[in-house]
Amino acid sequence: MKYTSSVERWGVFELSCKGTAEGNPFSERNITAEFVSQSEHKTVAGFYDGGGVYKVRFMPSFEETYRFTVSGNFSGESYSGEFSVTAPSAGNHGPVRVCNTFHFAYADGTPYYPIGTTCYVWELQSDELIAETLESLKNSPFNKIRFCVFPKSYCYNSREPRSYPFEGTPVDGSLVNEDNVWGFTPDSEGNSWDFLRFNPAHFEHIEKCIYELQKLGIEADIILFHPYDRWGFSTMTPEQDEFYLRYAAARFSALRNVWWSFANEYDFIKSKTVDDWERLAEVIVKSDPYGHLRSIHNAGQFYDHTRPWITHCSVQRSPEGTSDWRRQYGKPIVIDEMQYEGNIQYCWGNISPRELIKRFWEALCRGGYGGHGETYVGEDLWWSHGGKLKGESPARIAFMRKVLEEAPAGGLKPKAMEWDELCAVPEDEKLEKESGYHLFYYGINRPAFRWYHIDDENTYSAEIIDTWNMTVEKVGEFKGRFRLDLPSREYIAVRIRRI
Amino acid sequence: MKYTSSVERWGVFELSCKGTAEGNPFSERNITAEFVSQSEHKTVAGFYDGGGVYKVRFMPSFEETYRFTVSGNFSGESYSGEFSVTAPSAGNHGPVRVCNTFHFAYADGTPYYPIGTTCYVWELQSDELIAETLESLKNSPFNKIRFCVFPKSYCYNSREPRSYPFEGTPVDGSLVNEDNVWGFTPDSEGNSWDFLRFNPAHFEHIEKCIYELQKLGIEADIILFHPYDRWGFSTMTPEQDEFYLRYAAARFSALRNVWWSFANEYDFIKSKTVDDWERLAEVIVKSDPYGHLRSIHNAGQFYDHTRPWITHCSVQRSPEGTSDWRRQYGKPIVIDEMQYEGNIQYCWGNISPRELIKRFWEALCRGGYGGHGETYVGEDLWWSHGGKLKGESPARIAFMRKVLEEAPAGGLKPKAMEWDELCAVPEDEKLEKESGYHLFYYGINRPAFRWYHIDDENTYSAEIIDTWNMTVEKVGEFKGRFRLDLPSREYIAVRIRRI
Repeated sequence: MKYTSSVERWGVFELSCKGTAEGNPFSERNITAEFVSQSEHKTVAGFYDGGGVYKVRFMPSFEETYRFTVSGNFSGESYSGEFSVTAPSAGNHGPVRVCNTFHFAYADGTPYYPIGTTCYVWELQSDELIAETLESLKNSPFNKIRFCVFPKSYCYNSREPRSYPFEGTPVDGSLVNEDNVWGFTPDSEGNSWDFLRFNPAHFEHIEKCIYELQKLGIEADIILFHPYDRWGFSTMTPEQDEFYLRYAAARFSALRNVWWSFANEYDFIKSKTVDDWERLAEVIVKSDPYGHLRSIHNAGQFYDHTRPWITHCSVQRSPEGTSDWRRQYGKPIVIDEMQYEGNIQYCWGNISPRELIKRFWEALCRGGYGGHGETYVGEDLWWSHGGKLKGESPARIAFMRKVLEEAPAGGLKPKAMEWDELCAVPEDEKLEKESGYHLFYYGINRPAFRWYHIDDENTYSAEIIDTWNMTVEKVGEFKGRFRLDLPSREYIAVRIRRI
Repeated sequence: MKYTSSVERWGVFELSCKGTAEGNPFSERNITAEFVSQSEHKTVAGFYDGGGVYKVRFMPSFEETYRFTVSGNFSGESYSGEFSVTAPSAGNHGPVRVCNTFHFAYADGTPYYPIGTTCYVWELQSDELIAETLESLKNSPFNKIRFCVFPKSYCYNSREPRSYPFEGTPVDGSLVNEDNVWGFTPDSEGNSWDFLRFNPAHFEHIEKCIYELQKLGIEADIILFHPYDRWGFSTMTPEQDEFYLRYAAARFSALRNVWWSFANEYDFIKSKTVDDWERLAEVIVKSDPYGHLRSIHNAGQFYDHTRPWITHCSVQRSPEGTSDWRRQYGKPIVIDEMQYEGNIQYCWGNISPRELIKRFWEALCRGGYGGHGETYVGEDLWWSHGGKLKGESPARIAFMRKVLEEAPAGGLKPKAMEWDELCAVPEDEKLEKESGYHLFYYGINRPAFRWYHIDDENTYSAEIIDTWNMTVEKVGEFKGRFRLDLPSREYIAVRIRRI
């Protein structure tokens, strides 16, 4: 047995044991460890990592001494040991949790405002492209990225991935018809997979990528199923689906920056019903000892986000409905797809950066969080392959993130002001009252002036924010009812704060 | 009795008789004339025009000899006579009618495509401003204008009108509070009107303005009631409302370019119920012998446009729903308000010309017709006062009108093509088949290319239309499935026609 004697809080404690490689260790063997400290007691399933090696991973939540005992039919031996948990290193705030109903915070209480992007299979590209993506992310505003465990077959996605999740042989890639632009080729004839034998290298590589994201402070929003498939991974049997989920949970759960996205466009996966999704959700709820965030993303109709296993709404839609969805679901609203900046042939991937930035601000001022994607015609599209960011929106998203981080902590909620304006105030009522913070946003409207009236007693500073040109202009201090002259341009916000 | 011995078809035959001026001739006296030609037989109510003069107006629909006899208690005399009807002069196509369910045509069959604007009280301004408005209209693409019989009290509308529809004295205008920006001051104390005595000069002036519009080929979409009122004209009794409508119908109906808009923002007129509107509609249906077009315009909720007296839907809303409204109401869709180009403080009057032009094209490609308005901060705002057009949208509307007029006659309907594009084809099925005309519109989407496939047999010409920059670029001839490279810009249309 190998393990480290010390690990930081919310780090990964990993133990590794030799066991039998005979038969099918994935399906016939198991390994489990029980972890006990003063404040915590968890039993955690491990996994077979190939080559006769079995592993158990654990994320400790307390700075205490942990004892563990290992059991299972993987070997005739029995093991136990102990390790100590040290303080988290800089930048380690623990896993992200829902906080204040509509928002998020790390386990240590630090607010987390999701600023997400989508690169569906960035981690299944070449080493060079992966390195380029990580470099792009490092210089970007993004602190969450959505991507798939399974490879993707779709328009602009005809290449084979670097590896497959299962042992076996894929269908001949030359049969892929690029004219079948939606990429749905449920005809998976020609594939030959053993769905009971994983390819540990595939998962290990994804883990490395998740760690790289962790170093950059980026949450990994892992998409477990998706419909863009020519290999048959979207049409496995219920037992095969559950077997895969338990393996993924055993491998990934101990990584603190993991989120579970059960599906991309769940309603396009015709082979699964709502009952299937509910059953699969239960598998993850039971297999993930840490309760990582869970969501399921739609194409058309939303999933029923009131289901208790769903921690936050991950939606595809333009953001007008955000305030309504808050009331309807009582959970954080993360609009992971609002159409992408780009110029591909489809409407979901060819809006202007101005339009995307407008949607980000609208989502924000309605108490939710927008999401980014980029689809400019080319060899590698950020939205799927990663690589270099070419668009004009990331700089403006960074600017918006700064404005959000300058607001009172804990996120914003929509406030009814004049009928024809969006206004956000701090979600927390105490902070709302203390700060007098109001963030107005006018979108495509271009008022030459507006009247404001927060109250009669206090003095307020006012600033005009050009969300596209990324400027903040102080315009003075005001009391009672006051008028601000505005620039008669689109995409203007006004920030008012009590002095 | 005075009258002309000859009038052109769809012109105004007017006869004028002396009668008593004693008592209240408006309410106590009446005049009626019966017109008979070979093909037509109509009895038409006249009106008291002040100074002991009674008039009857008639719009003949046939080039025949008409005999008439006058009756009524306006005088002890009895009158009769005859006149001949000549061919219409150039530019006189008769009144506009609904044609082909969703579109319009003049009585002589010439297609009429409404390209409307709104200047609520342009005709109640100074002579100089009225002249300027007419000059602007002459150089504009607009062939319909919405305006009110009653003056308007509202933000940017505090001035008194040049005249009032009734005898009496208005409230002191200095009491108007400009901060009451919505202008609704139903408190009409201080006004002193005799609602049974009209001011004929007010109506005569409006008639002159309608004739001026007629000379320019512009339809007068006359708004009979509206809520922006400090004089009490929106809160008359049912009897007073009906008395006013009969007078307006007797004066205006014979002018061929008259349309009846029962209300602007009917749902903001809290003093009237749906039952009231239905009753008032009946008054106009009975009093207008020619069946001019009738509509009623909403603020929030649409009126029930299935009502038989409504000839076309006049709506305030952005145009996304146009295709649905066609199915729902089975009538022409005229979106008279889609928000206005401008920069005033309210969202309904500060969108960009680009956004307004986008809405015009969207309305068009969904089988409806958009409407223009302009609200730039200043002394005189086009939307209410007329004057000079300052915006960038009219030139682009003229360009769109040209594209529409180049299409096969009779208007366009939406056609389901790819799920993410708008496409319009000729409403008329025969023309649709003959022409192979397809007008695609991409709005804010910026595809770098699209695939097209009309059929396999025919050859098609394709043109790329930049609806903002007003260019039409021929890109070649195509057969079968073909790809067009597009400019990756917003506001692009593609026109495909069979060769």
